[in-house]
Amino acid sequence: MAEFKHLVLVKFKEEVVVEDVLKEMEKLVSEMDIVKSFVWGQDIESLEMLRQGFTHAFLMTFEKKDDFTAFASHPNHVEFSAKFSTVIEKAVLLDFPVVTVKSPA
Amino acid sequence: MAEFKHLVLVKFKEEVVVEDVLKEMEKLVSEMDIVKSFVWGQDIESLEMLRQGFTHAFLMTFEKKDDFTAFASHPNHVEFSAKFSTVIEKAVLLDFPVVTVKSPA
Repeated sequence: MAEFKHLVLVKFKEEVVVEDVLKEMEKLVSEMDIVKSFVWGQDIESLEMLRQGFTHAFLMTFEKKDDFTAFASHPNHVEFSAKFSTVIEKAVLLDFPVVTVKSPA
Repeated sequence: MAEFKHLVLVKFKEEVVVEDVLKEMEKLVSEMDIVKSFVWGQDIESLEMLRQGFTHAFLMTFEKKDDFTAFASHPNHVEFSAKFSTVIEKAVLLDFPVVTVKSPA
């Protein structure tokens, strides 16, 4: 069965201290074994025209879709999401089974 | 040095045969050793409100930022991108050094 990814692109509100949000996000993920991997990044390269205001990408990987579903509905995640929605100006979410074309040797 | 990711979210134009575009993308990536890994996915889960019309995510990983820079300016990629821009309705690109919070055991 394919791995499943939860991808979130955001633009934070200007007054937000991003480091604080990241700490909460790291705490959430570290407490939940169901999250297999979690990486994120802040865009440093794309032209504004191409990134359209989005500044950060968050990418979680799960063993399977059921694990993502369990994570998404978990009280800790629901609580975090409610808070998170107040600190962002905009976001795009995509959730998808992973198709691997090339993986590291 | 951190790995570097090139993330592309798109909505394809309605008449486009996505499989054909994917084949070209796979060809491009398979010909360039500089691309360390490449995965993609089609959203099957997010609410339309959350995914905002975007349907596909493409995610390439490079050993380092310089490799991404070399990839981005490579004639094969430039040629592909020019074509690619004609088949999409909209896109967001983010390019970022990877911060790993949690990696698979």
